[in-house]
Order: sequence, then structure tokens, then C-alpha cells
Amino acid sequence: MSGHRLGLPHHDGSPLYVSTSAPALDERVRVRVRVPHEYAVRALHVRQVTDAEPEFRSLAQVSSDERESWWEGEVVCHNPVTSYRFVLEGGPTGYAWLNGSGLHERDVPDAADFRLVAYDAPPAWALDSVVYQVFPDRFARSSARGPVADEAPGWAVPAEWDDPVAIEEPTVATQLYGGDLDGVREHLDHLERLGVTTLYLTPFFPSASNHRYDASSFEQVDPLLGGDRALRELAAECHRRDLRLLGDLTTNHTGDTHEWFVAAQADPQAPQRDYYLYDESGDYVSWLGVPSLPKLDHSDPGLRRALFDDPTSGVRRWLRPEAGDDALDGWRVDVANMTGRWGAQDVNHDVARHMRATVVDERPDALLIGEHTHDHSQDARGDGWHGVMNYSGFTRPVWTWLRDKGSAPKFLGAPVIVPRLGGDAVAATIDEFGAIVPWRTRVHSFTLVGSHDTTRVRTLVGDDAAYVVVAAGVLLALPGIPMITYGDEIGMEGTFGEDGRRPMPWDESRWDHEIFESFRRLIAARRELAALSRGGMRWVATDDDALVFLRELDGQTVLVMCTRAAASVTAPVHHLPDVSRARTVLGTTLRRHGSDVIMAADGPQVSIWVWGEDGVS
Amino acid sequence: MSGHRLGLPHHDGSPLYVSTSAPALDERVRVRVRVPHEYAVRALHVRQVTDAEPEFRSLAQVSSDERESWWEGEVVCHNPVTSYRFVLEGGPTGYAWLNGSGLHERDVPDAADFRLVAYDAPPAWALDSVVYQVFPDRFARSSARGPVADEAPGWAVPAEWDDPVAIEEPTVATQLYGGDLDGVREHLDHLERLGVTTLYLTPFFPSASNHRYDASSFEQVDPLLGGDRALRELAAECHRRDLRLLGDLTTNHTGDTHEWFVAAQADPQAPQRDYYLYDESGDYVSWLGVPSLPKLDHSDPGLRRALFDDPTSGVRRWLRPEAGDDALDGWRVDVANMTGRWGAQDVNHDVARHMRATVVDERPDALLIGEHTHDHSQDARGDGWHGVMNYSGFTRPVWTWLRDKGSAPKFLGAPVIVPRLGGDAVAATIDEFGAIVPWRTRVHSFTLVGSHDTTRVRTLVGDDAAYVVVAAGVLLALPGIPMITYGDEIGMEGTFGEDGRRPMPWDESRWDHEIFESFRRLIAARRELAALSRGGMRWVATDDDALVFLRELDGQTVLVMCTRAAASVTAPVHHLPDVSRARTVLGTTLRRHGSDVIMAADGPQVSIWVWGEDGVS
Repeated sequence: MSGHRLGLPHHDGSPLYVSTSAPALDERVRVRVRVPHEYAVRALHVRQVTDAEPEFRSLAQVSSDERESWWEGEVVCHNPVTSYRFVLEGGPTGYAWLNGSGLHERDVPDAADFRLVAYDAPPAWALDSVVYQVFPDRFARSSARGPVADEAPGWAVPAEWDDPVAIEEPTVATQLYGGDLDGVREHLDHLERLGVTTLYLTPFFPSASNHRYDASSFEQVDPLLGGDRALRELAAECHRRDLRLLGDLTTNHTGDTHEWFVAAQADPQAPQRDYYLYDESGDYVSWLGVPSLPKLDHSDPGLRRALFDDPTSGVRRWLRPEAGDDALDGWRVDVANMTGRWGAQDVNHDVARHMRATVVDERPDALLIGEHTHDHSQDARGDGWHGVMNYSGFTRPVWTWLRDKGSAPKFLGAPVIVPRLGGDAVAATIDEFGAIVPWRTRVHSFTLVGSHDTTRVRTLVGDDAAYVVVAAGVLLALPGIPMITYGDEIGMEGTFGEDGRRPMPWDESRWDHEIFESFRRLIAARRELAALSRGGMRWVATDDDALVFLRELDGQTVLVMCTRAAASVTAPVHHLPDVSRARTVLGTTLRRHGSDVIMAADGPQVSIWVWGEDGVS
Repeated sequence: MSGHRLGLPHHDGSPLYVSTSAPALDERVRVRVRVPHEYAVRALHVRQVTDAEPEFRSLAQVSSDERESWWEGEVVCHNPVTSYRFVLEGGPTGYAWLNGSGLHERDVPDAADFRLVAYDAPPAWALDSVVYQVFPDRFARSSARGPVADEAPGWAVPAEWDDPVAIEEPTVATQLYGGDLDGVREHLDHLERLGVTTLYLTPFFPSASNHRYDASSFEQVDPLLGGDRALRELAAECHRRDLRLLGDLTTNHTGDTHEWFVAAQADPQAPQRDYYLYDESGDYVSWLGVPSLPKLDHSDPGLRRALFDDPTSGVRRWLRPEAGDDALDGWRVDVANMTGRWGAQDVNHDVARHMRATVVDERPDALLIGEHTHDHSQDARGDGWHGVMNYSGFTRPVWTWLRDKGSAPKFLGAPVIVPRLGGDAVAATIDEFGAIVPWRTRVHSFTLVGSHDTTRVRTLVGDDAAYVVVAAGVLLALPGIPMITYGDEIGMEGTFGEDGRRPMPWDESRWDHEIFESFRRLIAARRELAALSRGGMRWVATDDDALVFLRELDGQTVLVMCTRAAASVTAPVHHLPDVSRARTVLGTTLRRHGSDVIMAADGPQVSIWVWGEDGVS
């Protein structure tokens, strides 16, 4: 067991530590550092970088109690993104930098500096979200419709709801179960029962595949899904139930049946010709060489108009209500990382800014999330995507902690090298990837333990279903917007993305009810306890089998313990609120032994304890 | 004593490991990893990021000897900057990433990935350079000129050569010793005796200060320095002696006496008005609020034309020969980090690209170096500055190793927090800052242990002059273009930048000859041993008082030991070439004891041993 970490100075971008996380340009933001007494500092300074030149200001001690002192200083947001770090004089080593990845007793680069962002903030509703991802062909077929075979188009291979999924060519992308948007609408009760707040649909555009990432138009909803009417009705019904609705748009490519591409191929003089990229030999460029997915050329103003600026553009159309509140609340952007990048061309940042401006122009409270498959620090600067799908900084480290040795994790169908690691490495990875984006971007990024593109978490963890519960605990208690793929909440399996796209079984006898109940309770805890969505984040202790951390707001302290095996962790009582006043939200009871608090688990488990608002026992 | 590090797999951007460091776009580059047998890998893959999407390729083992195996694979430079890392299966932990900062047994962000750059390469001569920085007012006054008092302009306070420097307002910037370019030319013998290859002059423009960073024109040479004629003659004489010559241009601001600023202030309609930035109240913006240094607005095309594009622009004029080879070989750019940045405006990258294009258009083999005061990884992407002044990744860590506890290091006049640290921390800092830029940028950046803007290294190290020799050893043996400030080679002192700008004493009885001879011998070693300028870099061992490393090329191995106190380091013989064939270039003798090589020093010292070309004893 490693020692506890509560004796270390701390700062993050949450309300305890910054006077605002949505500063205006040139606003002076108060920043605070908590310094436990055992870390005896003599002085603290903040180093901010202004117009790319470091400048220093001193902090003053503003309060002190039996546990710690608080120091306060000022950061001036002269630039849209202002990075800052602290330097501590004194302490055990005489000198240390404090940045997002912790304390450093030598100079370190700026990547993990804290950052304040003066661009417009993400919508207020986003932080309280728990997102539920639905793959429309596989979630539910509406009751009024007949057999899918009766209406399947030529490219499709119809399947009955209980048929096994095709996981090989040539039918992997053409097997059609016939799930539709009315079917989703008919099952919104399930989302409410689970407690999620936001429905995110993978693409609903017409296409020649079951995944619909090969859109043939961005300006209509696939008639197989019920067409425009079904989407509008679904959106309206979501909003009646206080659910938000997100769509999924591919900015990187279209399908080769897309109206633009068809026009471009038919006539070399067609303006749509310039919407696409061509290589030196004149052939069109496609996503990872897949011929059915021709890649868009975002250096062409015509494409930008058609996709973004035109009032009827794909991006705008579905954000704009037609009758009542029947439009989307935002977009998830497919292949956001590759968008606008090819060879020497890189207009990705400009595209992200353009789409952000378009989206908020159409709907000021819309949310925009980019898919990203690795280090996203350069692509999430605060003026484009509000956040990303945080595969690199969340999914992968959680997988390394909970994967079964026998499983073979896959991402987008390809094997990925994910060793089984202890909790220290997992925490360090989460910290490091969390630190290289602004706190605001981190908490507005989707955390996920799987998606339609990956091995299902139930399969990843192997025999022990309790590991799924632990994964859910980490997902719902750490910073970020939790995203749950349909079916993960009932223990659905799948060895890779396409295998995991199994039809949702509505016969509840096929559900893992222990997993379902655990998701339900964890989601409820997330929604009840504001500190889980809005609070700061400090590690209490980590070791191979335990991740123990605090989420803190002024007035509410939440202590979380996730274990993959029996474990016991202690921390000095003076670092935590009064143990006798802790309420157990989930799991075991918190105990005091002498001057220590003891947090224990007898196996894979999640425990949550709370003090303060909504939480005084 | 830490253990030796030679048992670890290694890759860097030097010729042993990449088939080229100057690939064309879409070129397939062979990359190699050396894997000592004690690190038993099962397989190696390279992960490169293409259009911002990771892709993997396997490496094959291509050779093996008693010490290690070599693995080879391919990186395709589809993008102008292609980042890559390796993943090792097997080894002590079963799994590890290898990037520029070493081995990592968990996922790490991409900042330290290796990088190949397909932009045009820096000029070939640059890598072999040893740069000598001269502050024209303080280096030498030409023999033909009379007393400076006879010609000092109104703003100046004339000083005799042996007067103490003014270090306080109001005379710190106006005290004029009257050094001139003919004086520099008359003392080129000194540069040749020392062995440096490149003369870098701080600004030679007319201005109202002794530092001349407040230019009143970029289109003439200060008549006080001898005017255009003196610069042309100096350049021609440098080239006759095979010395290169660099100028110093401020792109961030001009002086308030600059012809543009005078015109802008005289007439609100003047086109020069738009060359400058103004704040909300209409006042002009100035560098760090210093009124005499109005800041340029690089979003104005007129400024860009005047500074870059016009055939007579400041950037072009001095790179273009008038009679024979009488022009500069490149520019150092002052305040490069802040250039083009103010508030919400950030056109820095575009300015750097523009200046690079201008410079190489005028002189294809010109070198362009940007001043940078902290993490420069975002500002040295390969298409702007060829390299930077590497204060953050070199000066600061070396200072932490060699500073005297009693000294008070200063940078640009401000105190900087530099603790005294051991060699492990110093090496880790050098590694980490080195890893976040492409190898090609790292080796083309100026390394320095002081400059006209900092505490003099002789003052920094305190009582023991031998520390200056150790600083020189680190400077001349580690990767990067070594830059020596005039006078450091004779032990000149100064508690901060302005205090260090003392007139060069030409009376050699005032020199520290031990320091001078050490610089001379180290520079000679640098120039003799190609591995020191072009080789790879591996640490042999580090501890508090010792930095021991290898610089390696195919056919030449150089072993370097720098110590700040008595130290002894061992490494297994099989990791190094035959000890009996090592030639001692400097310092102590290499010894063998049983199966170990022993590298020892009895105090602050530099030892250099070589095997191979030019080096077989």
C-alpha cells in the first residue's frame, strides 16, 4: 500500500481553486492553492505565460486551519488561453513547481500547466450530463413496423432481432436489424429508469451501411429510421422528458453514395468536385484507404458553405427547431482528429473553430464533442470542440486496470496493446492526460469504458462481472462527462466494435441485473452529488488494486473508493471531515481507528461516502 | 552512484538511428532501435501518427552482436512533421513505450514522441558551428578612432574602456563605451585563437541606447558602429577567415525613435500607423510596458512588406551581398517568443514562417534562430525558426547543477528561481526539454550557459573557477549549437545581464588563462570530433556530481565525463568499445577493472575519450 497523498499541495480548475472557469478576456481571476501544514512552504508564486512570456506574481496566505493553509493570488487572462503554474519555496525540497500533473522538484515543460480559457464556455447543462450512446440499427425497432425484410434496400442483408451479429466481410456493415428512431422513442423509459440525461445517437443519415458513417446526405434522416419526422418526434419527446439529444456528424468524409460525391464524379466541372481531396494521380483520397469513404477537402470554401454556413446545411438544419423543441442539442463529430488533415494540408483547427461558431450561432447552448483516438491536447484548445471522446486519457488507462489477461482489447477493429497495470500507473496516466488540456476541456470531455468502436467492457474484464461495476464506478465518479454505450448497463458482450453492436435484448431475463442496478445507483449518485460532476479531484491513495479519491466542492466532500480486489487504505483523520458524520452512499462503511480513517473493500467494489450538503447523515 | 543506463533500448534522431533527418514529404525513412540483450524484447513496433491518426508497423531485427541487437522499421513522412514512438513487447515489464524521454511502462502523451520534419533542412554549416556572441558597444573600439566622448550623441553618457559599467537607471542603457564593428574586425584573431566558427552580433542598428534593441531603423547600420561600410567589411573579413556572421533583429518591437514610429505618431493617416499595436484607449502597446519599445502589429500586411518582402527590407538587405561575400549568414531574432502575440491576436507561427521564407529566399544557406525564454516546443515546429536559444532546456538545468548557493541567478534582470540540484535532475530536465522538439530542432538550437541577458557563468558558479570549465564541457559536448558570450572564455563576471556587459579587457593579464585554455581545448575537441556535433546521445550514468554520456556516430564513439566534485562511475566493459584503444582527448585516463570500465575524476573536471575515426590511439 502506497502512502496517502493528502499531505501534498493542490490546485485544479474546479470552483474551490479558481474564482471562475469562464473568464472574459483580460479578466483577473483569483487562484488558490491549498497547502497542508506538513508541507511547510515559505512562499508561493504563480507563473503565468502572457503573450508567450513568463511573468511571476506572489500569492498571499488567506486562511489557515488545523489541517492546511490556503494561499491566493491572481492570474490575468490577457490571452484566450492563459497557462499558469505555481512555484513553492520551502517544503521538503526547498523548491517545487506545482502544475496539473503534480509537484516537480526540477524544471518541467509547460504541457501540464494549468490553463484558464476565455473563449465562450460550453453550455451549462453539459456538466450535469450522463450520456447514453445508441446505435440506431441495434437499439429497438418500433412496434408499428413489420419485418425488416419487407423494406430492406438492395445493399442490406436483413436480420431478425435475435440473430447473431455478422462480424466478418461481406455482411459486417450490411446486416440490417431495422432498429429505428420510433423504436428509440418507445424505449426512452429505459433511459429514464437508468437515469441518464442525454441520448447520443450514432449517425441517422441515409447511407449504404448499418453504421451510417457513410452518409449519402447530411440533409435528411434515413427513411429506414423513420425519416425526418421520426427524428423530430424523438427530439421533442426527449425534451419533454428533460433528456438532451446529440447527433453524430462525419466532417472527415462522406459515403461514396453522397449526393455531393455523386455529382463530383459525374461532372469534373461540378462545384462539388472541389469538396473532395485528390492525390497526385488524380484519384480521390479516402478515409484510411476505404474507397466508400471519400475524404472532404476543408480548404474549399464551397464545402464550408455547404456543410456549415448555408441555412440548410447539415450542421445547422438539425439544431434548428421546426415545431416546438424538436431539434438536436449538439453534435458528436466523427473522426474529428483527422478532419481537415491530409499530407501537407492541416486546417483542422480552423474547421473545429468554424463548426463551433456555426453550432453556437444556430443554438447557443449546443454541445460539440470531437472523436479523438490519442493525445488530444493540441486539438482541444477551447475554441473548437468543447471536449473530446477521451479514449487516451480515460478508456485506455481504465482498461489497463480492469482487463482480463485472456481478453484481447480492440479499438476500431484493430488489436491494441493494453497491458494489465496497477492502480498507481492508471492514476498517473489519468493525471497526465488530464493535465495537458484545460480543466474545463477535461470535465467537458466524454469519459467512456467502451463504445460502438471497441471491445465491450463486459468482455474486456473477463469472468468477473463485478469488474464491470468497478469500471462504472470509475466512469461515474471521476471528472468528465460519462458516456455509456447502450447495453453496457446490462452486461452486453462483444470482442470488438462490430461484435459489440448486438441488438439490445428487451427480454430482461437476458440482462445482468446486478450490473444494471449498479449502473442505476452510480448514475443516481452522480446526479445527486454535485461534487462528482463539478468538484475538484484529489487522490487519497492508490495501489495496485485500489483507486481512492476525493471530489470536492465548497460545502460537499465526496470520497470514492474503487477496488479490483480486496484492499484497505488509511489516511490521517485530520485530512478528512469527521468520519462519524460521513454518509455511506454506496458500499462499505467508513471506519476510524485511532488517528486513521480506514477505507476497506473485500473484493472488486465501489464505495462512496459524502459529507456536507445533501450528504449530512 | 546510480547504476549505468547502457542496458536500455535507445533511439534518437541522429544518423545511427534514422536513414535521414531531412526527409522529403512522403519519403519512407528507415528507423532503428538498439536493444541491449539484457533487455529481452520479443517484438518491436513503431507507432506513427498520420493525419493525426496513430498507425502501427512492426520492426525486424536486422543485426545482433555480443552486446545488443538492432531492429529496423519504417516511418512514412506523409505529413510535414511526423511523430513516432516505439512499443516494445517483452523486456523486464512485458511492455513499454520508447519515446524521446525514454522508456515508459504506461501510456504517455505524445509531447515527447520522436519527430521527423519534412520542411527544408537548416543550412549544412550550422551543425558544425561554435557561436561567439558579441555586444558591439563592449567588445572593442577600433584603433583609428578617437575618444568616444568626442562623438557621443546627446542621449549617451560616454565612458572610458576601463570604467565600471553602469548598472542602474538612468545610465544603464545610455552609458556608451564606443565599441565598433571595425574594432570587432580588428579582433577576429581572438575568435580564431579561441576556435569559434560563427560570430553573432547583438543589434547593430542605430538607436538611442547602448544595447540597440530599440532600433530607429532596420535599414542602416549605426554610424557610431562604423555604419554600413563597417558591417560589410566585417562580413567580408569573417568570410575570408571562414567565420560565419549572424545579425540580431527585433521583430517584436522597434525603438520609439524608429522612422516608422515617428511617422506613425506624426500623422494618424500614415501607413506606418498600422505597423503598431494600440490598446483599447488608443495608446500604443509596448514591450512589457517599456514606452521606448512600441510593439509591432504583424497582422498588418504593410508591416510585413516593409520588414520582410520589400527588396530593401531590414531582413533582406543585410543578407544580400553588395561586393563579394559581405553579407550576413543569418539572423538571431529578439523576443521571438512574443512576436505577433498580444491578447487575442496570435500570428506568431505565421510570422516565423514568413521570416523563414524571406530569409532562405534571400540566402538559401541562412540560419534563423529565435530567442525563447521557456518551453519552446509549440514555437519551433520546423517551418519557422531553425532553432531557438535554448534557455529552458539547457541554461536553466546547467545552472541548477553548477550554481553557487550564494549567487543570485538573474535573467533579463529579474531574479529567477534556480535551486541547486543533482545530476539526475539535470539530466532528466535536459532529456525532457530535448524530447519535446524534433531532434533536428534540438541540435540546431543554441545551447548556452549565459548571455548578455543573464548572470555571467563565472559569477554564477561562485568561488570555484573550475566550475566554469565544467560548464564549458557540458556546453561543448552535449547536443546543440554552443553559444559563448564574449568574455565568458576569460572568466568575465557580472551579477546580471547589464552588469555582465562589461568592456572586453584586451590586457591579457586580466584574463583567467585556465578558463581560456579550457575553452580553447574544448572547442578544438568539438571541432575535431564529429560525434560531438552530429552524433547521437546516450547517458552512461548520472549522479549528484557526475554527468557521463556517449556521443556516437557510425565509426566514432566519444565518451564524456563532466563532474562538479570527485566522482567515480563504472559501466560493464561489454557496453563500450575496447578500453585499451580509447584515446584520452582531455582529462583523466579510462581504466578497466575486471569486467568494468572505470571513469573517475578527483574534482570539478571534464574528461573526453574517443574511439574510432580520428580517435584510434
